[in-house]
Amino acid sequence: MRPSERAPDQMRTVKFTRNYTCHAEGSVLVEFGNTKVLCTATVEDRLPGWLKGKGQGWVTAEYGMLPRATGSRTAREATKGKQGGRTMEIQRLIGRALRAVVDLEALGEFQITIDCDVIQADGGTRTASISGAYVALCDAITWLQKNRRLKKNPLHGQIAAISVGIFDGVPVLDLDYAEDSKAETDMNVVMNEAGQFIELQGTAEGHAFRRDELDALLALAEKGIREIMQAQQQALES
Amino acid sequence: MRPSERAPDQMRTVKFTRNYTCHAEGSVLVEFGNTKVLCTATVEDRLPGWLKGKGQGWVTAEYGMLPRATGSRTAREATKGKQGGRTMEIQRLIGRALRAVVDLEALGEFQITIDCDVIQADGGTRTASISGAYVALCDAITWLQKNRRLKKNPLHGQIAAISVGIFDGVPVLDLDYAEDSKAETDMNVVMNEAGQFIELQGTAEGHAFRRDELDALLALAEKGIREIMQAQQQALES
Amino acid sequence: MRPSERAPDQMRTVKFTRNYTCHAEGSVLVEFGNTKVLCTATVEDRLPGWLKGKGQGWVTAEYGMLPRATGSRTAREATKGKQGGRTMEIQRLIGRALRAVVDLEALGEFQITIDCDVIQADGGTRTASISGAYVALCDAITWLQKNRRLKKNPLHGQIAAISVGIFDGVPVLDLDYAEDSKAETDMNVVMNEAGQFIELQGTAEGHAFRRDELDALLALAEKGIREIMQAQQQALES
Amino acid sequence: MRPSERAPDQMRTVKFTRNYTCHAEGSVLVEFGNTKVLCTATVEDRLPGWLKGKGQGWVTAEYGMLPRATGSRTAREATKGKQGGRTMEIQRLIGRALRAVVDLEALGEFQITIDCDVIQADGGTRTASISGAYVALCDAITWLQKNRRLKKNPLHGQIAAISVGIFDGVPVLDLDYAEDSKAETDMNVVMNEAGQFIELQGTAEGHAFRRDELDALLALAEKGIREIMQAQQQALES
Amino acid sequence: MRPSERAPDQMRTVKFTRNYTCHAEGSVLVEFGNTKVLCTATVEDRLPGWLKGKGQGWVTAEYGMLPRATGSRTAREATKGKQGGRTMEIQRLIGRALRAVVDLEALGEFQITIDCDVIQADGGTRTASISGAYVALCDAITWLQKNRRLKKNPLHGQIAAISVGIFDGVPVLDLDYAEDSKAETDMNVVMNEAGQFIELQGTAEGHAFRRDELDALLALAEKGIREIMQAQQQALES
Amino acid sequence: MRPSERAPDQMRTVKFTRNYTCHAEGSVLVEFGNTKVLCTATVEDRLPGWLKGKGQGWVTAEYGMLPRATGSRTAREATKGKQGGRTMEIQRLIGRALRAVVDLEALGEFQITIDCDVIQADGGTRTASISGAYVALCDAITWLQKNRRLKKNPLHGQIAAISVGIFDGVPVLDLDYAEDSKAETDMNVVMNEAGQFIELQGTAEGHAFRRDELDALLALAEKGIREIMQAQQQALES
Repeated sequence: MRPSERAPDQMRTVKFTRNYTCHAEGSVLVEFGNTKVLCTATVEDRLPGWLKGKGQGWVTAEYGMLPRATGSRTAREATKGKQGGRTMEIQRLIGRALRAVVDLEALGEFQITIDCDVIQADGGTRTASISGAYVALCDAITWLQKNRRLKKNPLHGQIAAISVGIFDGVPVLDLDYAEDSKAETDMNVVMNEAGQFIELQGTAEGHAFRRDELDALLALAEKGIREIMQAQQQALES
Repeated sequence: MRPSERAPDQMRTVKFTRNYTCHAEGSVLVEFGNTKVLCTATVEDRLPGWLKGKGQGWVTAEYGMLPRATGSRTAREATKGKQGGRTMEIQRLIGRALRAVVDLEALGEFQITIDCDVIQADGGTRTASISGAYVALCDAITWLQKNRRLKKNPLHGQIAAISVGIFDGVPVLDLDYAEDSKAETDMNVVMNEAGQFIELQGTAEGHAFRRDELDALLALAEKGIREIMQAQQQALES
Repeated sequence: MRPSERAPDQMRTVKFTRNYTCHAEGSVLVEFGNTKVLCTATVEDRLPGWLKGKGQGWVTAEYGMLPRATGSRTAREATKGKQGGRTMEIQRLIGRALRAVVDLEALGEFQITIDCDVIQADGGTRTASISGAYVALCDAITWLQKNRRLKKNPLHGQIAAISVGIFDGVPVLDLDYAEDSKAETDMNVVMNEAGQFIELQGTAEGHAFRRDELDALLALAEKGIREIMQAQQQALES
Repeated sequence: MRPSERAPDQMRTVKFTRNYTCHAEGSVLVEFGNTKVLCTATVEDRLPGWLKGKGQGWVTAEYGMLPRATGSRTAREATKGKQGGRTMEIQRLIGRALRAVVDLEALGEFQITIDCDVIQADGGTRTASISGAYVALCDAITWLQKNRRLKKNPLHGQIAAISVGIFDGVPVLDLDYAEDSKAETDMNVVMNEAGQFIELQGTAEGHAFRRDELDALLALAEKGIREIMQAQQQALES
Repeated sequence: MRPSERAPDQMRTVKFTRNYTCHAEGSVLVEFGNTKVLCTATVEDRLPGWLKGKGQGWVTAEYGMLPRATGSRTAREATKGKQGGRTMEIQRLIGRALRAVVDLEALGEFQITIDCDVIQADGGTRTASISGAYVALCDAITWLQKNRRLKKNPLHGQIAAISVGIFDGVPVLDLDYAEDSKAETDMNVVMNEAGQFIELQGTAEGHAFRRDELDALLALAEKGIREIMQAQQQALES
Repeated sequence: MRPSERAPDQMRTVKFTRNYTCHAEGSVLVEFGNTKVLCTATVEDRLPGWLKGKGQGWVTAEYGMLPRATGSRTAREATKGKQGGRTMEIQRLIGRALRAVVDLEALGEFQITIDCDVIQADGGTRTASISGAYVALCDAITWLQKNRRLKKNPLHGQIAAISVGIFDGVPVLDLDYAEDSKAETDMNVVMNEAGQFIELQGTAEGHAFRRDELDALLALAEKGIREIMQAQQQALES
């Protein structure tokens, strides 16, 4: 039995709220149950130094957690004077996943920065971030198109992400914090709309996982991602 | 005429939403019009080194802005590797103001940290932070009392804060960003429930201000603070 | 009775020594009693990046304390790897105050940096810094004029600063360390030669201050600033 | 055709040289073709603060690259003042993988730190590091046993790691730099001696990968890891 | 001809002013011509962690330069966020030289920190610092003795330091900045009262120096150090 | 008797292995007995900002130690977030010594960076670094010449370095760690092929050293450097 009494293949309620704040070119609050992440997309017409004059744009991401997004207070990284390894790992993952569906040459010499800031954490913040970042990215690209800054749509796919894991011996979908902290295996999966893999990151926490367990986890992930993609589409169409 | 078409002595709508997030001992979203700050209070039973064994507690604050809380993106301080001067100045101000109404000995050996994170900025983030931080602090102290960790109530006053300034030659109350960026004088006032001053920080941006202008500004501030205090009380009673 | 046996409205001896060191375009040792601050002004013909090509100059300030300027040794900020919040707050204040009397367009594309380094501290280092920085700034501008680098004088006013506070229930002028560390209210006031306010920063340390106390403090500040301005004038004329 | 003319399922020559340096409790130079990493294991009887008094030990890893391990010089992280995101990601991965085969309670209150320093890089430095780190860890544990500091052997498994990827449309084993920089998909796999997964990290660089491609990659990885494990065993027995 | 018109073996005027500031246990302004360094000695009864409980004390030094001690402004190290290599090199040298004449066990569990802050620079700041630091150290030890904190005098020697160099082909004593910046060889010598070497640091700037040049430089250094030691003695006796 | 049973004037075995790694323009493993340092030379056609457009090149050095090059583990500087004073001192010394034999104008607008990374330490790492760096520098300059990037050879001399010291009252050559940690005096000498001094750094650790001791140490150093220079020549000719 899962702590949340969900069925093994049952997602938490997924919700995307667009235009959550007023300044950004894209601003989406994504909720996976109690996990809430604000994803904002910023369009700038300046590029990092190493990309200048190469006739292409860039999509990057930064990740942060409000200090009390978590059960006990997490020290503020700005105060500590550096981002931790977990933060860097996550923001590199988000940026990489987004770039997998963007034609950087078609984007032209714009940089889009997606900031994913966790307002409230209950497991799965990195997969919620990726899923919400995609919606914010869509809005930013639509903004560029409305302002006639792009010749063609640089977006050539849809992505979403979900965590799966083995909890108490059973493969389960969309782990919350109560499960995540005790899971024997934890896997984050990013897929595109064709059900192909963009990223796959599995970690054995308690014991190594077998090939048949991997297969079960991937099947769960595919189901979850399909549901998230529907929610993304509905949000984008509303 | 103010850009927002408000009367010179008219506040923006002030709103306090308690329990905005689920983990913190106090969690308040404060809104002054489009300015939105999440204030969370964390209670910990460990103290900074220099306070250990002195038979008293501590109240401190940290301040941050989400990168796209502002019209153009502000670089993340965690990425830059340090907090800027403005951030430090503001968080020192918030902490000092809160400590003015707390009996640190009555608090016992607890530390309460108030995190003020700006979700959306439209001027007045520091005064909104102080006003919201007070409500979060009340909730954290109530939490301590409910958990029977305090012998007596360490809170001996109420505080709120507002900005006033001279815009286009006219003293005005509660400056939004459009006014703040052009104001000739900008003043932040923190008062207690008796109308006494806790902090007074006035800066001549364009031209020096005269004594009679100061008097007009202080009168406006007093009016605004009285209104905020009513809103704080209503929120705390609800 | 004040620890120094001064009358409530009595300043410490104020002294400005110009050309205290030999390299800077302005170099002033300012003394408020035992508080001694070396203020040097550096003229450079390069500007911070965000100001380039805007047809104006810049005036900024940095503040530091020698480790043993204080009663017990203060850790060196260069060793700790960052400037503390108090330092940043003070140097921002000094820069802002100086810019209030400089026409940055008339300055042309020069940057003047005022370094205020506390050689010996006995309370009031920030107000002594501002008062001394003004004299160093005058010398730097005279240097620019002598070298025919300016078309018109960019200085359009005089500033000085003083601290006032409530000590043992009595409003007093120019707090030394013995008073400052016990004052119930501490206020720093920066004024121009017309008696108008440039900056006003009041903090209730022990108890909130009433409007009539504020009035008394402002009157004391005005008296003190008039005396400092005379000393500045005498120093500049000598 | 692979640039190195290897068959798709052909590893580079793998070599483990024990006792490569003289001071460490374990010191192994691992070579995967031209990729050379020095893995040293340090045993200390002090633990990180958060682990003290919990009756268990810790295994952790740090990763670095000599500046000219690479084709063009990489700036020294000590000079830049921080470790980059890639470094943190890799060292977290190495540490996690090693802990998967160590019973931390059986280790007692010792910390073993594995430093993986890349002397020469030609692709696959993280998987070479993990494979070499395992051998260094074995030597460190043997050292502890010889010195009668352990009651039982804390090591309960063997690990090795390999990279696989899709190069020019073909799944290939053990990518060198020429392949890695052009691969469409890149996957790092850590397995134990039972062929179970410890870590799985796949990234689509060029295009998303399908399920059948994943299956082919995992089969290659399993073959490669079996070969590395034989080389580890031979080195440990020599 | 030297720029200052001094004879090759002629020192600048050397002056030690004790009790230059009021808080430190030793406070000495040392002047070598236009080079002015404030050396303060701080006595604390706490030790660095690695020395605790070893029954001995510690003597250490820190070095800094006011930003405008130099002809053009030097960026403040506190602002840059770290001490430069030159600063570290100098402060390590000062500390090492002082420890050469202190019996650390006789000092007991006290730490004496000597801060050498350059108020005005004209070459030779490191040798002036060492020479002044010695006098400040004497005063700090006298302070400890007067306060009956020491059983025996931990000071067992006198040190002083001077720079020598080859300028325009001629060995000269006590280089000022005009000489230092053009010298072909620059050597700093620290000696004790018996004329023995504590430190010797010679650097060929323009061309390598021969053994006979070294001999000439050492003879000059010995002469200069004898003169500085006399000035130290006179200052300490006054 | 020396711990290593060497005669007082006996060097350890000195060995230079060129082309130790494959990417760098110069790559030399230098061994002084058990001390092993990898020196790589990188040629780049970009210069530090302050040198641009001055028609000359630059030679600089960086120094590092692998964490377990030493008997007990030394914390990684990249993890600590800064290079220590010892590291900075050494890398400044290496760079200065190399520049003494390079005509920077003849080098043209190239920068050569020599990285000296200690693989295994047993005393004398800085002198081994300098001696190995010279060989790597030669190879880098040969590389530039082969690639027809230089009009004339910018190298106008040969350098090598050795440590000497007083151990147990006896002047000895080439101290290993067992001697170095107990030596009363420690001196590092850099000479050119004419037996002239490039750098001389002597430190009295236990007691001050007399002039006759200095003479004995310099004689030993000259002998050692002659031997190292022969080994350098042989390596370069092979």
